Amino acid sequence: MPAAKAGFELDPRLDRDSEPLMWLGLCELRIMNDRRWPWLMLVPQRPTAVEIHDLTPLDQTMLTFEANTVSQALKRATGCTKVNIGALGNVVPQLHMHIIARNEGDPNWPGPVWGFEQRIPYAREELHRFADSIRTALSP
Amino acid sequence: MPAAKAGFELDPRLDRDSEPLMWLGLCELRIMNDRRWPWLMLVPQRPTAVEIHDLTPLDQTMLTFEANTVSQALKRATGCTKVNIGALGNVVPQLHMHIIARNEGDPNWPGPVWGFEQRIPYAREELHRFADSIRTALSP
Repeated sequence: MPAAKAGFELDPRLDRDSEPLMWLGLCELRIMNDRRWPWLMLVPQRPTAVEIHDLTPLDQTMLTFEANTVSQALKRATGCTKVNIGALGNVVPQLHMHIIARNEGDPNWPGPVWGFEQRIPYAREELHRFADSIRTALSP
Repeated sequence: MPAAKAGFELDPRLDRDSEPLMWLGLCELRIMNDRRWPWLMLVPQRPTAVEIHDLTPLDQTMLTFEANTVSQALKRATGCTKVNIGALGNVVPQLHMHIIARNEGDPNWPGPVWGFEQRIPYAREELHRFADSIRTALSP
């Protein structure tokens, strides 16, 4: 597993709310530790990027490719109704992209997940099961 | 101005809530008719697409390029603190991407715009001014 890019430090709030899953070419893929929704996060290893348009065109294409791969894997692993993708950054400016599996009747459906009530952390075993299902769905 | 792609029909709910601004290569660029936030929307002219990962890799790259262009123009035109980008589709499945200018203290800051209270339409003149500012920011 490659190490974090030199000079990149994950924002402590992202670090607190999520768990590492794997390194991709541009991004670290993390799991939001919130059992209310299957929720992944891509963090491009670019220390100064805040907006997607801050990335170089090549990095933007890489992010698109990785988001595509992760979105398909999440859909395959969960069989969800809809994938929600968002890059907001109003609270934590460090560039990160959310990829969330949504289903009819889930908390706050059909509204957005961000800012909705309190995060509910996974039990450890449950987190590992979800992580394994994503790893399996990502393998070729 | 090129016409809509044959076979593509804009979802009536997107049509009701937004106004046309211009055609790009893949997408129609529209303005959400909600004066609470400067809010643009990209609608890829692909009748069957629901998820971004439903698009071909080339279309995904086009969407990334057009989102980049529009996001930079919106930032330039508004001087906003943060651009929010999202593709949710929980209410209207037809693939569309939101690009929104956010500022500290705006309605529901730092929470998301989706599902927050009621839309407030622009006065006609105000809508034209916003449209002009985006057209200017998009011109080379």
